[in-house]
Amino acid sequence: MNAHIITIGDEILIGQTLNTNAAFIGEQLTNISINVKKTSVVPDDEESILKEFKSCLDDNDVVIVTGGLGPTHDDITRKCVVKFFHTELAPNQEVLEDVKNFFKKRGQKITKINEDQALVPKIAEGIRNSRGTAPGMWIEKENKMFVVLPGVPHEMSEMIRSFVIPRLKNKTPEKDFFIKRINLLTTGISESYLFEKLGDLDELLNGATLAFLPSQFGVKMRVTVHDKDEETAKNKIGEIEQKIRSKVGRFIFSQQEENLENVVGRILTERDLTIAVAESCTGGLISNMLTNISGSSKFYERGVITYSNASKVELLKVNEDTLSEFGAVSLEVARQMAEGVRGISGTDLGLAVTGIMGPTGASSDKPVGLAYIGFCDEKVCTAKKFQFGEDRLLNKQRTAQAALEMVRRSLLGIPFDE
Amino acid sequence: MNAHIITIGDEILIGQTLNTNAAFIGEQLTNISINVKKTSVVPDDEESILKEFKSCLDDNDVVIVTGGLGPTHDDITRKCVVKFFHTELAPNQEVLEDVKNFFKKRGQKITKINEDQALVPKIAEGIRNSRGTAPGMWIEKENKMFVVLPGVPHEMSEMIRSFVIPRLKNKTPEKDFFIKRINLLTTGISESYLFEKLGDLDELLNGATLAFLPSQFGVKMRVTVHDKDEETAKNKIGEIEQKIRSKVGRFIFSQQEENLENVVGRILTERDLTIAVAESCTGGLISNMLTNISGSSKFYERGVITYSNASKVELLKVNEDTLSEFGAVSLEVARQMAEGVRGISGTDLGLAVTGIMGPTGASSDKPVGLAYIGFCDEKVCTAKKFQFGEDRLLNKQRTAQAALEMVRRSLLGIPFDE
Repeated sequence: MNAHIITIGDEILIGQTLNTNAAFIGEQLTNISINVKKTSVVPDDEESILKEFKSCLDDNDVVIVTGGLGPTHDDITRKCVVKFFHTELAPNQEVLEDVKNFFKKRGQKITKINEDQALVPKIAEGIRNSRGTAPGMWIEKENKMFVVLPGVPHEMSEMIRSFVIPRLKNKTPEKDFFIKRINLLTTGISESYLFEKLGDLDELLNGATLAFLPSQFGVKMRVTVHDKDEETAKNKIGEIEQKIRSKVGRFIFSQQEENLENVVGRILTERDLTIAVAESCTGGLISNMLTNISGSSKFYERGVITYSNASKVELLKVNEDTLSEFGAVSLEVARQMAEGVRGISGTDLGLAVTGIMGPTGASSDKPVGLAYIGFCDEKVCTAKKFQFGEDRLLNKQRTAQAALEMVRRSLLGIPFDE
Repeated sequence: MNAHIITIGDEILIGQTLNTNAAFIGEQLTNISINVKKTSVVPDDEESILKEFKSCLDDNDVVIVTGGLGPTHDDITRKCVVKFFHTELAPNQEVLEDVKNFFKKRGQKITKINEDQALVPKIAEGIRNSRGTAPGMWIEKENKMFVVLPGVPHEMSEMIRSFVIPRLKNKTPEKDFFIKRINLLTTGISESYLFEKLGDLDELLNGATLAFLPSQFGVKMRVTVHDKDEETAKNKIGEIEQKIRSKVGRFIFSQQEENLENVVGRILTERDLTIAVAESCTGGLISNMLTNISGSSKFYERGVITYSNASKVELLKVNEDTLSEFGAVSLEVARQMAEGVRGISGTDLGLAVTGIMGPTGASSDKPVGLAYIGFCDEKVCTAKKFQFGEDRLLNKQRTAQAALEMVRRSLLGIPFDE
């Protein structure tokens, strides 16, 4: 079955609100193997809405519309539904009771415009809304399903989960194929290098599809397998994952939608290890990422942000001669910072970064984007050089990500260099 | 001029990635008075892409496409452009130099597939990409503009800002009416309280529109005036701004799209003042925000993230008796932390936060969302209590924002309490 999701609302078009509704519905439909062929956003305008209704019903089995069902003047979706299906509004007793109860519970008086919300097009079955006053509509015509829901995310999501998905599941013909997906999250390797390392993709994938999704945090690889038999699909995807891991496994930090700081936090917690962080150029970002994790006080002891040279010396006991000989942005200072922060904190691990994030601060031999990351555990103290790009905020994020990856690889015994 | 925004990518359709690109472009086009009539998302599939190209060019003056320009096999947008416009690929020397430089700067080897990215359809002008390797394309045909950009958000956004918007501005016909807009950014006051304080809106606005856009950082008020005469529009909006400021002026921290940390950083730089920050519950977020500002080393001296009690005592000389009597999350500890961090750093100002961000860590008298913010300058040391919500990440952001607002108000002599 193919589906089209329509979102109605000017606020989405002008970029004031993100279209989280379409993303949520897309995910829910994908989970029950309905193929989302298209999503679109149209303004609160009758002509545009009717045109979109018409064009999408031709190509799809399922159409899901959200938005424009509220009680005020700019909510015109129900009117468009009536016009499009050549039907008329009729009172719906069940829905009216819901609306009345909604106001009673809150000790509020019901208004005329709220009562009007209990009118439902004759052609439609009303979908009850336990979290608000606008009912949804379920319309079936010529083997096509047309569903209209309010745009308020927590009302819509509840109606999708409790009514729309179970109903659609019933309507889905016996499955003639199964979709299995895995996401492999990598960091520290570019999309093109990853592509090269994987070699012959046709051979690797054997009919499956592979998508590369790059961001400043790394490249996500998504593998999708279709097969008539569920077990075969599962085995196929397992085989492909093994092949990919044998080629680029050490760059893969997660196969859930888990971010790197969560992976590092989990390993630290499991092993009962503590960490302290000394940041210069990232200015607190690494500590902020680690302390976003609930329960981080188990492994995160303290951090220092030694922006000035004086603070590097006073807080971390970085050698003043080293600072003047090599400069604050150097391999040696990164190493000493990591050693220093581990020393003052009494933690198992010490992590440190120093660099030039730009746009100012570069010199002839130290360009913008240069960063050094230092790492110490009870056995070794090491540091590594990185060269990132021009943008200050991206450089901070990339440096932080590389630093966390250095911790992950050290903990798992994966070498950092090629 | 009417515009249609097309996003290409399965990851958006299946709800794995939010369509932030369409939102960003929608906002940028709206800012220069281009009317966004529709946005749509289609899969990485030639037939769907070509069909969408065709249908949108009929109804619009401007089409902006993002996604599917990467170097790998599943990136088919360029191929579709070639087919749709009956053109062919040709090497583009300028773009090839960009790609080569991109790799050279990073000390990486260029691969064959990256070189191929420098091929641009003959009908198109290449749009240079300063943050990545895939160039964009600008195509003009029969008075319509067709723009294709990579889907990586920070590459796309830079190309929109530096190339697409200035070019489109030039193409916009002479205006027969003028739109003036101001954004007044507030923090520390809720939407409903702001609404109440403004009083009679009809009288205040006199035909203009006012939108409230709340987020965890505060409430943005956007005022829009339409008028046939540019000067009249400008005067009208100036009058409305004055009226609003007379009622809620002290909550307004910016009338540009400037965030609070930039405002604070600017005042500190202008006055040649330095600050040091001690964070417990925000875990480095405040320092990260301040050091996102280029040139922050002028005013930001150092920070400490004293997550453990030991670190509060060792680094900030917080009194151990105070800690055991009042607990780490208390007014007194916040004050001592601010005093301590100012003392060890020798800065003009000291800022400190301690709190319970959740979901764990609450006790019967200290609920999740409780935060204390301490602030010291050469004259006074003070602390203030705040109560935020349930969500850990939102609580961190709200605490950080309140702390920065405390600095802003202290610097400007605006009382914090009602």
